[in-house]
Parts: sequence; structure tokens; C-alpha cells
Amino acid sequence: MRSPVVKSCCVLFLILFLSRHYSVSATKKILNPKKPCKRFILNYHDILFDGNDVANATSAATANATKLGNTDFGKLVVFDDPMTKDQHLLSHPVARAQGFYFYDMKTTYNAWFAYTLVFNSSDYKGTLNIMGADMMREKARDLSIVGGTGDFFMTRGIVTFQTDTQEGTKYFRLKMDIKLYECY
Amino acid sequence: MRSPVVKSCCVLFLILFLSRHYSVSATKKILNPKKPCKRFILNYHDILFDGNDVANATSAATANATKLGNTDFGKLVVFDDPMTKDQHLLSHPVARAQGFYFYDMKTTYNAWFAYTLVFNSSDYKGTLNIMGADMMREKARDLSIVGGTGDFFMTRGIVTFQTDTQEGTKYFRLKMDIKLYECY
Amino acid sequence: MRSPVVKSCCVLFLILFLSRHYSVSATKKILNPKKPCKRFILNYHDILFDGNDVANATSAATANATKLGNTDFGKLVVFDDPMTKDQHLLSHPVARAQGFYFYDMKTTYNAWFAYTLVFNSSDYKGTLNIMGADMMREKARDLSIVGGTGDFFMTRGIVTFQTDTQEGTKYFRLKMDIKLYECY
Repeated sequence: MRSPVVKSCCVLFLILFLSRHYSVSATKKILNPKKPCKRFILNYHDILFDGNDVANATSAATANATKLGNTDFGKLVVFDDPMTKDQHLLSHPVARAQGFYFYDMKTTYNAWFAYTLVFNSSDYKGTLNIMGADMMREKARDLSIVGGTGDFFMTRGIVTFQTDTQEGTKYFRLKMDIKLYECY
Repeated sequence: MRSPVVKSCCVLFLILFLSRHYSVSATKKILNPKKPCKRFILNYHDILFDGNDVANATSAATANATKLGNTDFGKLVVFDDPMTKDQHLLSHPVARAQGFYFYDMKTTYNAWFAYTLVFNSSDYKGTLNIMGADMMREKARDLSIVGGTGDFFMTRGIVTFQTDTQEGTKYFRLKMDIKLYECY
Repeated sequence: MRSPVVKSCCVLFLILFLSRHYSVSATKKILNPKKPCKRFILNYHDILFDGNDVANATSAATANATKLGNTDFGKLVVFDDPMTKDQHLLSHPVARAQGFYFYDMKTTYNAWFAYTLVFNSSDYKGTLNIMGADMMREKARDLSIVGGTGDFFMTRGIVTFQTDTQEGTKYFRLKMDIKLYECY
């Protein structure tokens, strides 16, 4: 027959064992890619300035393509692009995407993005900061949401790009599937 | 009257219940914007190179503004700027800010920053990596601290910009209120 | 002699005390710089385009150096560079490094990087997103891994750069010691 003291010790040991477990799990915690704490889909519209269309253009190349290959290697575009809930360019923007992309492969079109989604609506106020590779020949590609402010205070997550439309060099539209995994 | 076995089971159940709670709270944990684990304010001084003042300039435009609007859209500036505790440009710098900004709106001045604060003093050794939108027409705007090294190993946080002084295109000073929410 | 009720209360109190400890430790948890959850070393090879070597070059300057000093201040290079396990340029790449760097000091060579490591092999599929200062005069310097996707879903960490070889302005090789501290 076990004494109360032995039982108490067992419970204490168990607690301490679990407490070790927790401090390890702080760095090995399980986040499930299929279960974001918040998710929404927005559409990104980019109208590249051609020298004349100041009224409509939302982006402009500030450094031209280099002569390394024929797929615009090094072309650097700064943008302030509208984000809409549906796919229509002229729908009311629910956010702006402010940042840049450049092309970075000499054999095919491939891009790299860093930008901020700026929300200033009744739904959300705040920003999401995003960077990563846009491997344009893949159907879907993931970039990192590396921080957030305001309603998105300290968040992190993944945004998945899919190209919806590409109209020459003038206009393209990306579907951005925004999945947050750390919400506060 | 409850038996010791029943009581032990209750305690175990409670522990397991709490342990579930912890593993959930790992992704929904509470961070309080008003309670950073570390906070300090530094002043950022930017002296833009005009072609002659090599000795004093700390930044230079490496890509010129595009013709999209009249507010320097696309102008890209690389900087290695001093950070001081007080507002005096000539105070001893406690860190350097190394990175870039560019202007990205066609109707007003608005910028986007990515940079590293490099500390190498008796107070701190290490870096903070920062990115985000600088919506210059707002009084205060938040950018993300997305990582850190050295004394700031793996940190994250928010830095709030406020413009203190803007002297034409030549010099400006920002107050940077640095708030860390994940400290290790 | 203590009653069972008192003993139960003690256990409960202990559990609650520890639970407070955990919720605090969520923001103050211990990550040990010497104990990453994953670590591997890769070699980064950069062959800068000189105008003729399209076949071999893997990077190109898209903005030229400014006249602020004589150490390439403002020179901005876009790259799509091979990453190899050993130091041989011609070994099979296990990843691509896609992004950019620029020089940002007027008195010495010093750089700033932002890039994505793109893995698409039998070992790993996914990306790591990295940014930070490359203080070239230091033997070792740390940059932040600010996010990841695919097999590196939501990871964070540190990458330590060491320059292995610098052959004029044409070729350099960096050892990148990749240490992840948040694994999922």
C-alpha cells in the first residue's frame, strides 16, 4: 500500500516532467498548415507604367532589365497596387500592396517580392509584411508573412500566389490566399 | 467519501486539461501591445548625397524617380545612417541603420523601408532586422521587426516611426520607438 | 497530520503557479543559440555578369554604384545563385538562392542581403526567407531567417555567413551555416 507522501511525489514528478515537455514544445509546437487562425483571399492588380498612362498605372520600373538573358533579369518594379475582394480591377480596394518585385532568372520569367499590405477600412486597420520568391512557372507558390501591425499585431503566416491573368507586360492579376498561423 | 484513486485521477485529468490548454495557447498566446519585453527609442538621421558632400552624406539614391507622378515614385535610396539616443545629428551613434527605402506613391510622398540596425557598443552587440511601409502622411506608423541576432537573438517586435524634422530633400530625422515582444 | 483536502489544495496551487509561469514563458521562452532544431551548411556561389558571360553568370548589377565613396555604395545586384553542399562551384546545386544584395558603406565594402533559398530536391521541398546585414569585414556575421514554406513551414532561425573566397569583382563564395530554432 502506497503512502500519501509517495503519491504526492508521483504527482510532483509528473508535473515537473510535463513542465519540461512544455518548455521543449515551445520550439517544436505543432502548427497545422491546414488550420490557419485566420484566412482570406484577395486579388492583386498590377498596371505597369508605360510612360504615358499616369492616371491608371500603379507600378513603374525603377531599374531596367540587364542584358543577362532575355527574360528581364534585374528589372525592378516599385508598386502601390490595389487589392480587391473579387477579381475586378475597378472594385473598391480593401487594401493597398506597397513594395517591389524584380525578375531574377535568365532562362524564364521568375520574380521576387517584398511588400506590405496596408489595410485601412472598417474591416481591418493595420499591415502585413511579406517577402519571398514568386516562382512564376509553378501553379501555386508560397511566400512568408513575416510580421504584422495594428489588427494584425505580430502575426506570421503564408501567402499563396496564383496567377489569374497575364496581359502582356502591361497588366497582371494574382490571387493571394492569405493564411495566418500566429494570431494575437 | 472519495478514494485516493479517484482523487489522483482528478489531478491527472486537471493536468492533462491544462496541458491541452497550453498547446492551443502556443498559437493563440496573448501578447500585449502595451507591454513589450524591451523598449528603447533611437533617432535616425538621413543625409542624402547631393553629388558633392561625400564627407557628410550617409545615403545616396541608386535609382532615380520614375515619371509616374511628381512625388519621386520609384526613387531608391541606399543608406548607412547613424542612430543616436538624443536628437542631435552629431551625438555619438549607438547603432547604424543599414538598408534602403524607396518612394512608392504617385500622389503623395510615401515610402517603404527594409534595413538592419547594427549595434556594436558596450550596451548591445547584435542586429535587428526591420521591414514595412512608412506611410509618411500618418503621424505614427508601425513597421515589423522580423528577426534579430546577437544580444537580440531571434527577437521580434514593432518599430514606430515619427517624423521629427524634414529639411527639404537633404536631411530628415525619424524617431524610432523600438518595442520587442519576443525576447530570448 | 495534513488532511487530503489540504494536500489537494497544495497540488492545485502548484499547478496554477506553474501555469502562470508557462504563460509568461510564452514570450520569454528559452531558445539556446547552441541548440538549433535543424542545422545544415551550404555554399553560395556568385558569378557577377560582366556583359559577356551570359552562360556562366548567375547575378547582374541592375543599379550601378553611386559616387558616394569608392566602395560601390549603392550598387545593387540581383542573383539566382547555386547552393552546393561542398565548395565546388560545379557540384550539383541542392538549392537556388534568389534575391539581391547591395553595397552600403562609403569607406569599406559592406553589403545587405534579402533572398530566398529555394529547395526542390528529394531532401527538401520549400523555401527559406532571409534578410540582414553582411558586415564583410567581420569573420562571421549573422542574418535572420524570417520565415519558411513547404518542408520549412513557418520556421525561423539564423544564417551565419563566412567568406570563403573572393576573386576580384567576378566571383565570390560564402559559407552559409543555416540554423533553425523554430521547427514545426
